[in-house]
Amino acid sequence: MSSINVALLGFGTVGRGVYEIIEQEQKRLTEILGCSVNIVAILVDDETIERNVPSHILVTSSAHDVLTQPVDVVIEAIVGVEPAYTYLSQAIEKGCHIITANKEMFAHKGHELKQQAKERQVSVEYEATVAGGVPVINTLRQLVTVNRVVQIEAILNGTTNYILSEITNKQASFAEALQSAQQLGYAEADPTNDLKGYDALYKAIILAELLTGTKVYGNHVFREGIKSVIKADVIHQQLKGSRVKHIATLNFGQGQIDIRVEPKWITSEHPLYHVEGVDNAIVMTGDYVGRLKLEGPGAGQYPTASVMVEDLVKIFSRERKLVNN
Amino acid sequence: MSSINVALLGFGTVGRGVYEIIEQEQKRLTEILGCSVNIVAILVDDETIERNVPSHILVTSSAHDVLTQPVDVVIEAIVGVEPAYTYLSQAIEKGCHIITANKEMFAHKGHELKQQAKERQVSVEYEATVAGGVPVINTLRQLVTVNRVVQIEAILNGTTNYILSEITNKQASFAEALQSAQQLGYAEADPTNDLKGYDALYKAIILAELLTGTKVYGNHVFREGIKSVIKADVIHQQLKGSRVKHIATLNFGQGQIDIRVEPKWITSEHPLYHVEGVDNAIVMTGDYVGRLKLEGPGAGQYPTASVMVEDLVKIFSRERKLVNN
Repeated sequence: MSSINVALLGFGTVGRGVYEIIEQEQKRLTEILGCSVNIVAILVDDETIERNVPSHILVTSSAHDVLTQPVDVVIEAIVGVEPAYTYLSQAIEKGCHIITANKEMFAHKGHELKQQAKERQVSVEYEATVAGGVPVINTLRQLVTVNRVVQIEAILNGTTNYILSEITNKQASFAEALQSAQQLGYAEADPTNDLKGYDALYKAIILAELLTGTKVYGNHVFREGIKSVIKADVIHQQLKGSRVKHIATLNFGQGQIDIRVEPKWITSEHPLYHVEGVDNAIVMTGDYVGRLKLEGPGAGQYPTASVMVEDLVKIFSRERKLVNN
Repeated sequence: MSSINVALLGFGTVGRGVYEIIEQEQKRLTEILGCSVNIVAILVDDETIERNVPSHILVTSSAHDVLTQPVDVVIEAIVGVEPAYTYLSQAIEKGCHIITANKEMFAHKGHELKQQAKERQVSVEYEATVAGGVPVINTLRQLVTVNRVVQIEAILNGTTNYILSEITNKQASFAEALQSAQQLGYAEADPTNDLKGYDALYKAIILAELLTGTKVYGNHVFREGIKSVIKADVIHQQLKGSRVKHIATLNFGQGQIDIRVEPKWITSEHPLYHVEGVDNAIVMTGDYVGRLKLEGPGAGQYPTASVMVEDLVKIFSRERKLVNN
């Protein structure tokens, strides 16, 4: 392989971040992988917009044209289940590795993609789907080669954590906190997915499927958003030493798993108590290793794009059996 | 390869932990790796002590006898630079992969072992040398495939963090806190290495060598232990919102690195402020990903042994190009 050929599906914030990192870090990537990493095609919604990419890169709204290029790996950063799932399934069928940041799609179709990839002997990497730049997926995958994970507790949505932090620390009203989140770019114009807990639910499902190896359905998960949180309660409970956090809890029993995504009152002994603002954090308990906590940026262009390019390096290091001492 | 043959060097707390995990998790390891993992030899100090291991395992005080067995990987959990370094160097020369938990040795000779392993095309894994069960090494290795690490701040010694926590939270005297740490098994009978900051220094050097790829010498590191911390100051500063923590700081500039291991007064905004007791924590700042924090058990039999067996799985997954979707 004289070069690694990449197709990018989606050229929004994260897609462009991946493009920029690959271009800027070409020298480093070539050193590590022993060959260049070339973006050969980019799938966009609207090909009439000027993207400022070199003319040798195919920029098109035709997924067919992208996937008929000679591509080794497809990096996907679109929103929603379809058409992303269909494209990735087609890419796997062609023998491409895939890397995705699309949590909604992966919560619904991750199990199917993993099965299909196993048959075609290609890799599916999805670090960016859960907790943005925090390497939760790779840490868990490594952990479970030896440990049984007995519990996960996590703050998986930065928007709601920011809103709850604002209410708690600045006595903001819910509306003020939401508006502040939107002004800072932490919340979408339509924040329903975050506020109702769907975003955290998707991530909890992805973690549960990783840890059980089986398909997990959203309607088996208890889900409550943060709209039921009342400012007066937050202030009152704070005086008693409690804070409210929107927490995904996964409990693994004998062949059973219980998943809940809900606001919870916790005290300062709880490892998620001090997680503030848009940070994400995950506390994983393994039977040998005990309790590990990971915390960091749960979203953002470069944190998310960074772990996707790390996924790419991982796939091709493995392909070449590269050892990094 | 019909089985993976392991030699254990050292059968103290951590060595026995590795032995127990490999025995107890045989079924899982065989499933993941496609072959059994057999401990073929154990190097002990005193072979007259009954160890309760099956008779087909060679238990001996002769390193020569251990290393002339047909061994694929050597797992080392001895204390001190020598003879551990010589044994591992011999093992690499024979074409064995090595896994170590020996931070003093690896701080002094890690660079040489990595160079030698590169020439012999074997792996050196050392997750257990820094922060026990917290997967600092693998997280950093992955991170730097894309990011430049600009700073690390870390609590790398559980004993001193426990002592400082006791003084801060319970107004214990230094002597009381140390005694409590010893009673709980958190501190050695001779705690000099911890209290004077040598243990944290070793770990800081290992991180620095990982990140620079060059040899780092201990006398280039500013080191101060916790003996200069005075209880009256701790109580006084606490009223002003500051806590003292023993922190290793690595700053990476243009081709330069500044390493300090010292007590520091930090306020509640600092990401290490809430790290209490024997936990270790590391805050790493990458240019793309931003600030990540990892926290967990910095020592202990099973946390440390767990990451060593994970290292083993990693080596042989790579050997076999196993993909875990």
